[in-house]
Amino acid sequence: MVKTLTTLEPLITRLLEIRRIQSAAAVLSWDQETYMPAGGGAARAEQIATLEGLAHQRLVSAELETLLTEWVDPVTGQAADSWDEPSRSLLRETWRDFSRAKKLPSDFVIRLSRECSLAQQAWVTAREESRFSKFLPSLKTILGLKRDEARYLGYRNSPYDALLDTYEPGSTIAQLAPLFTQLRERLVPLLRRVQGSTVTIDDRCLHQSFDQSKQVEFGRLVLTAMGYDFERGRLDLSAHPFTTSFHPTDVRVTTRVFENDLPSCLFSCIHEGGHGLYDQGLDPRYYGSPLGESVSLGFHESQSRLWENCVGRSRAFWHCFYPLLQHTFPQQLADVPLERFYAAINRAAPSLIRVEADELTYNLHIMLRVEIEQALIEGRAEPDDLPGLWNEKMQSYLGIVPERDAEGVLQDVHWSMGAFGYFPTYTLGNLYSVQFFEQAALELPELEEEMRAGHLLPLRRWLEQKIHRWGRMFTPDHLARRVTGSGVNPEPFLRYLETKYGELYRL
Amino acid sequence: MVKTLTTLEPLITRLLEIRRIQSAAAVLSWDQETYMPAGGGAARAEQIATLEGLAHQRLVSAELETLLTEWVDPVTGQAADSWDEPSRSLLRETWRDFSRAKKLPSDFVIRLSRECSLAQQAWVTAREESRFSKFLPSLKTILGLKRDEARYLGYRNSPYDALLDTYEPGSTIAQLAPLFTQLRERLVPLLRRVQGSTVTIDDRCLHQSFDQSKQVEFGRLVLTAMGYDFERGRLDLSAHPFTTSFHPTDVRVTTRVFENDLPSCLFSCIHEGGHGLYDQGLDPRYYGSPLGESVSLGFHESQSRLWENCVGRSRAFWHCFYPLLQHTFPQQLADVPLERFYAAINRAAPSLIRVEADELTYNLHIMLRVEIEQALIEGRAEPDDLPGLWNEKMQSYLGIVPERDAEGVLQDVHWSMGAFGYFPTYTLGNLYSVQFFEQAALELPELEEEMRAGHLLPLRRWLEQKIHRWGRMFTPDHLARRVTGSGVNPEPFLRYLETKYGELYRL
Repeated sequence: MVKTLTTLEPLITRLLEIRRIQSAAAVLSWDQETYMPAGGGAARAEQIATLEGLAHQRLVSAELETLLTEWVDPVTGQAADSWDEPSRSLLRETWRDFSRAKKLPSDFVIRLSRECSLAQQAWVTAREESRFSKFLPSLKTILGLKRDEARYLGYRNSPYDALLDTYEPGSTIAQLAPLFTQLRERLVPLLRRVQGSTVTIDDRCLHQSFDQSKQVEFGRLVLTAMGYDFERGRLDLSAHPFTTSFHPTDVRVTTRVFENDLPSCLFSCIHEGGHGLYDQGLDPRYYGSPLGESVSLGFHESQSRLWENCVGRSRAFWHCFYPLLQHTFPQQLADVPLERFYAAINRAAPSLIRVEADELTYNLHIMLRVEIEQALIEGRAEPDDLPGLWNEKMQSYLGIVPERDAEGVLQDVHWSMGAFGYFPTYTLGNLYSVQFFEQAALELPELEEEMRAGHLLPLRRWLEQKIHRWGRMFTPDHLARRVTGSGVNPEPFLRYLETKYGELYRL
Repeated sequence: MVKTLTTLEPLITRLLEIRRIQSAAAVLSWDQETYMPAGGGAARAEQIATLEGLAHQRLVSAELETLLTEWVDPVTGQAADSWDEPSRSLLRETWRDFSRAKKLPSDFVIRLSRECSLAQQAWVTAREESRFSKFLPSLKTILGLKRDEARYLGYRNSPYDALLDTYEPGSTIAQLAPLFTQLRERLVPLLRRVQGSTVTIDDRCLHQSFDQSKQVEFGRLVLTAMGYDFERGRLDLSAHPFTTSFHPTDVRVTTRVFENDLPSCLFSCIHEGGHGLYDQGLDPRYYGSPLGESVSLGFHESQSRLWENCVGRSRAFWHCFYPLLQHTFPQQLADVPLERFYAAINRAAPSLIRVEADELTYNLHIMLRVEIEQALIEGRAEPDDLPGLWNEKMQSYLGIVPERDAEGVLQDVHWSMGAFGYFPTYTLGNLYSVQFFEQAALELPELEEEMRAGHLLPLRRWLEQKIHRWGRMFTPDHLARRVTGSGVNPEPFLRYLETKYGELYRL
């Protein structure tokens, strides 16, 4: 007789308790980024660290180990064939989480959590003042801890792989390097051709004065049209837009808004909305187990980038939404035709800020970060070298150099959070996003027409059915093959960009 | 050699972890009441219950028991004289918390927490729809659990005492009954005289149209003047105003605001601000131990009522703040003289809503609730009887009866939260508030002059020095005697009201 999830009940109950503790910690982090008064930071770091420590202790407990080793072969990390597929997946993924966690001492986990909360707060101040030196001590601490973590976790070739695997299970830098090379080899020349084009795109229409609350309202409208459910979510403001989930019934996104920069709020809403749809699309019955979690950060990013770029920077989408945007900002946009607006939101040019980069240059921003963080983790670079390294690579890839640290090495939150190894998932997300969108277009022949009419729900449903609801049932590579017939592949992404920019810039 | 807190370090570390878990649960509750999307309620109830369960397990753990029984005599609950006073207090109060918690099974604590979160959400809906029947099933569940809790905790005379002791250590209904009788015997005739007076106070000036965001801004201004520190706090909106604290560096208050009701936002800000000052005034070095907690809810309420009434409804306070309020609402208040405004905010009349009741009738609202909840806990009444009982007592004490459940039995959040035994602390708070304020006036001869000049910080400092910073160093009764020379005493409160209303209504 095939064994099912029912047999795993004692394990699932324990995982559920762990997840609830982690969700509580996530609420505390969300609050830290949105509403917490500045004075509360030190106490908050300790509270989150306490919860993370408790969750870790429970995950590596002897009780859980006994249950797991009864069902999983510790050598292969797999359960026997006598289990049904959901059970085998649950056991395989839980074993992965357990065995990784088991390598980290509990006091290390608590210390890392505390230092990351504190470093994140130091980063906020340093960034406000644009002074890297103010963040440097925290960065040294965090980097030291992450090097330790890589050692604890173990690796074959590079310690960086140990960290990368946290976010993108199964990936290594050796596998990703050829992808990056291929991208660089086609993107840099494409950028040169764009820069040499006779077409110049004027995007000043996006940088007029736009009422901030109206910007947020429009973001809310687009989120609603995407199918993001406000009964199970919220939109707030934070220094750095993000998505967090406490349960599929409570998934929150944030944005930021600037009076003179329409794209910032608009595209961060759509981007985070893509993340939010993934988390709202996870199966609530599986909350607590790996089957109720997203499969990888690359997949998560594919959802945000698909919505932000394949949808949010497409003609079809704006066919319906541009009149609404004009209606919201008549004074600013009534005289700007759709084609001019479409060109403006797709203008490609080297720029300083990753999250505001166009689709073409975005991955160059990522490569720079991946190279730097890999060098840091491997000990080939030190935090003191960072501003110099950053500017050198900016010059080499994008031909521009920031004048202020806030627009350079201090712009991203990730290193302060200890999220070394996270950046490659952005590029994976970009590649996957086009693969998935093209597959959706194949399977939904009306997709473009639907989008032109403002009907985004068929696309959302397709993503939910093909990706969201599966959680970690399959590995990332397996799920990609299941959806598109192949693993990660830069070709569709490169073709998409070459076509899009070829047309825009008449190359 | 006298033993000090240093010896208690192993105990203090464990208490700190427990407090951090409880603080995390408090963040989740705050979020539930302020920002959580409606759909997130069920998952949130489980998350909070998980944390409450963890905190309870740790408090009753064998490890903590071993430490405690080494230092505390389990019969008397006291530590030996060889300890210094802070240590003796810490041990006495920790023993109290431990031995009470020990009587409750962990699964009971988890179940109670979960049911209370759910009942609170059911109450919100029932209240919105003004349908008691919608709240009735939850109330039955909660009442059953609270009756169980009283049995677990044990009591001499009434099971109600077991619950009352949670909020007001050392109090019993037998001790409070004479206070209530004394109040009733003087307040009911005073109300009659007010109602028979030839003076009628017109408070229509308070019920014009007032811009909601300006109301909140004014509340913020008063909070700042009181010394409430926004670097360590926030003001948000919620259905029912409340104060919560996660640490002395993160103490949050909420208010509610109605366009046509100026007092609601104004006095709830001042009231919750009084609570907030207490929590911000606790010694952060003691966070985690009883020395860093408020001594009782009666004391807590004394702070909110002192600020709301003795300050916020005084001529001296408005001497400075009324011109600012007129400046905020010139159209509505420019032609209303200070005396008319002062009379309006002190108008006494039977009304339906407790939190909006005047100082004279407020305690009649409390008595009604205390009698009902005592009867419910003692099994002399059942939830089905509630609306009938409520209306009967309203008729008898105040001579009016609500037409809708939302303005009657559904108006308060307490029973949905399982807070049976909480209401008496409101009356204790009222009595203490006048005792403390009169003592402050004795010790600060300039107090009235300072208040007239808008200088509220000397009063705040006095309260901090005399009450806040001591935490649970002394028992409530001991602390009251230390501050005023006597225990709780209704006489100052009654004299204060007789003088105030005597003058206002020319009795």
